[in-house]
Amino acid sequence: MKPSIPSGTRDFAPEQVAKRQYIINTIRRAYERYGFLPLETPAMENLSTLSGKYGDEGDQLLFKILNSGDFLAKCPEAIIEEKNAKKLLPHISDKGLRYDLTVPFARFVVMNREQLAFPFKRYQIQPVWRADRPQKGRYREFYQCDGDIIGTDSLLCEMELIAIIQEVFGELGIQDFSIKINHRKILEGVAEVCGAKDNFQEFTVAVDKLDKIGFDGVCAELQARGIDTHSDSLQHFIQLAAGSPVEVCRQLKNLLASSETAQAGLADMEQLLQYLNYAKGEAAHQNIALDPLLARGLSYYTGVVLETVPTSVKLGTVVGGGRYDNLTGIFGWQGMSGVGMSFGLDRIYDLMEALGIFGEKDFFSSRLLILAFEENALPFAIRTVQSVRQAGIAAELYPELVSGKKLKKAMNYANDKKIPHVIFIGSNEMQSGTFALKNMESGEQRDMRADELLSFFGLK
Amino acid sequence: MKPSIPSGTRDFAPEQVAKRQYIINTIRRAYERYGFLPLETPAMENLSTLSGKYGDEGDQLLFKILNSGDFLAKCPEAIIEEKNAKKLLPHISDKGLRYDLTVPFARFVVMNREQLAFPFKRYQIQPVWRADRPQKGRYREFYQCDGDIIGTDSLLCEMELIAIIQEVFGELGIQDFSIKINHRKILEGVAEVCGAKDNFQEFTVAVDKLDKIGFDGVCAELQARGIDTHSDSLQHFIQLAAGSPVEVCRQLKNLLASSETAQAGLADMEQLLQYLNYAKGEAAHQNIALDPLLARGLSYYTGVVLETVPTSVKLGTVVGGGRYDNLTGIFGWQGMSGVGMSFGLDRIYDLMEALGIFGEKDFFSSRLLILAFEENALPFAIRTVQSVRQAGIAAELYPELVSGKKLKKAMNYANDKKIPHVIFIGSNEMQSGTFALKNMESGEQRDMRADELLSFFGLK
Repeated sequence: MKPSIPSGTRDFAPEQVAKRQYIINTIRRAYERYGFLPLETPAMENLSTLSGKYGDEGDQLLFKILNSGDFLAKCPEAIIEEKNAKKLLPHISDKGLRYDLTVPFARFVVMNREQLAFPFKRYQIQPVWRADRPQKGRYREFYQCDGDIIGTDSLLCEMELIAIIQEVFGELGIQDFSIKINHRKILEGVAEVCGAKDNFQEFTVAVDKLDKIGFDGVCAELQARGIDTHSDSLQHFIQLAAGSPVEVCRQLKNLLASSETAQAGLADMEQLLQYLNYAKGEAAHQNIALDPLLARGLSYYTGVVLETVPTSVKLGTVVGGGRYDNLTGIFGWQGMSGVGMSFGLDRIYDLMEALGIFGEKDFFSSRLLILAFEENALPFAIRTVQSVRQAGIAAELYPELVSGKKLKKAMNYANDKKIPHVIFIGSNEMQSGTFALKNMESGEQRDMRADELLSFFGLK
Repeated sequence: MKPSIPSGTRDFAPEQVAKRQYIINTIRRAYERYGFLPLETPAMENLSTLSGKYGDEGDQLLFKILNSGDFLAKCPEAIIEEKNAKKLLPHISDKGLRYDLTVPFARFVVMNREQLAFPFKRYQIQPVWRADRPQKGRYREFYQCDGDIIGTDSLLCEMELIAIIQEVFGELGIQDFSIKINHRKILEGVAEVCGAKDNFQEFTVAVDKLDKIGFDGVCAELQARGIDTHSDSLQHFIQLAAGSPVEVCRQLKNLLASSETAQAGLADMEQLLQYLNYAKGEAAHQNIALDPLLARGLSYYTGVVLETVPTSVKLGTVVGGGRYDNLTGIFGWQGMSGVGMSFGLDRIYDLMEALGIFGEKDFFSSRLLILAFEENALPFAIRTVQSVRQAGIAAELYPELVSGKKLKKAMNYANDKKIPHVIFIGSNEMQSGTFALKNMESGEQRDMRADELLSFFGLK
């Protein structure tokens, strides 16, 4: 039997895990600096929690878990005889795998509302599962790194989210990215001015495809849907997005003068940009583009929306988020305003690989491998490797004695694991307390006393 | 609708996540010091990978995932009409949730044998899922922290595993624990000498219950199974386990003189104890008990077995492991010897809580909360909180202005989140560049210039 893994899933070999951990730790530290606290929820949720929260398509993409034991026992015979999967489902499955981190977060907040300190700032870094058709860059198991603040409508929260994105990307060494921002009310104003006030949903669906089908495509789609858009006005808004966000704000105030809704959105936007300025000074707006057509698919956003895209690699959105006014409403707690975002770990990883940022950084190997030639050299070899480990440095003692052919095998081991230094120990070395240390990259070999080893590694 | 989570699963609130991360990081660092590399495998595995690997009971406890879409479409009508869950299962489900980390590890090694450097040392810290009946201390989703070395039969590996256990427990501050060790061949010798050579399986099953049913219970069970055991001999072995492992080894050599198998096991054990002595000196054997009756349930162990139990709290095994000679054999690659162990994160967490070790350590809160009284104090407040964050300290700016009732709410927020310091900023403070910093524990308040803040936190 040749083993395999389910399509759309992946094993992560050591080097990949180390790189992913590096990204995760960078995101975690940034959230924590801003006072976000970690939350973890179960991989399994009740289907009653998940169903209906992600639209019809989302319901299809939920992984459902078969009830344990004799899962047909409690199912009415008549239902089984219908042979209809959709009807049978609720009788044989009551749990599903986590589809995102937002719904479990809302469920947690509602279940624990009495214990939590509001505004509640939480971050959550966990895998989610979707039964999507697997394709390049799209997996059935992938990690999201969410941060949300719930219980306040202050724009200081949006400022913090954007500052966190800038800091995470800065620390990861990703320079070519754009944080696109918009406001639901600005988009509503645009629809109004373009003559699509009464067709806002269709307008946003069409406009959302701008990247894919271009300006003419969007106009054609709007026309096909019977929406008589003023395409000259629309073009104005598209061209705007290239300017600095403060400048775009200024122009939008004129272009959208007729829309009260838009003016409220623009006032929010100016405040947010001001806060960013206080927080980060001159550089604050550098990577930010105010795009009055940015829609974000999700209909529950009610205020600022944001998404981050790389600018030198075609890879889609790597961070997305926005403000919602009623997230916990789905579980019966109305009127809690919040704002959140999600970093896509897998896409950030792919981006960093594409940009070659990980480079030769030494994320994972042991610093030292000790080879013992004889059984009676082991006491010295073991003491030596332990002294290095106790100083906090990853080190290994090759578990077999390296006489004859074994020596070659051991040197290959050092090369395969990219271990930079090798020490050879036999009974002579044990007696003299001196051994040869080989630099695996340069091939250079030098004699060294055991008590010099820690200072060689910059310790002691 | 009142939301809930599936029975046997848990949400982890911020403080719990922080404590669990602390344990995980301690285990991770220990594995890495010894040259173990991280591996991660998917939550879902093909049922063909999982089925039959954990015995009949294990097959029952696997969580199965319903095939996506119309899961009945490819199922023969006749099968559906039988209304037999067991027969229907393979037609509607081909994936299951990870049940442990050992089988996915074996699968990974076989699938990647050409790319890996052997001996392959990997650690893996991930959740597993079992459809067990939930009860105190037993969950349906729990974390395992495994380390394995495959591709060598050197006892240096067993030495490293035991050293890692000692270091992890030492760093976590857990003092009262015992690492019980034994060897499959010693246990075989014991069975031989007790007259149960031909009933080894039944003998180990009975002996495994010693803790639960006592010596008389074990004797009764052996008798009931028709095994004529020399109960005097058996009692000898039980009493032995209290001595130092070297002393127990010495005595076993005499007691098991007639068994060649046992002598081979004892030679291994002496060598292992010797290696530990080289690595750790005098203290090496302190927490180790050689228990010649230790069986460990799993039949695939072929050499040294080990388990760690707390000695001052009744909590069961917190680490278990042993040597296996043919783990990858289940996937068609014979004869790869390996040794591994698994830390149970949830039990270690429960143990540390029971021992009160976490205590008042401040695992998670922000160090500072800034309160702004007026909108025009925000530039100064934002700059101040950012300067602290940029120095790597978690800090928060309360997102609402704290006039009137809001002040009380903000102070409660600081208390609930256990934030130790609060700063008050109004327009006066903004002009003078000086503010009051309040110590939330002592209630003490002191005036401070903004440029003194970092040195107050021990920075700059």
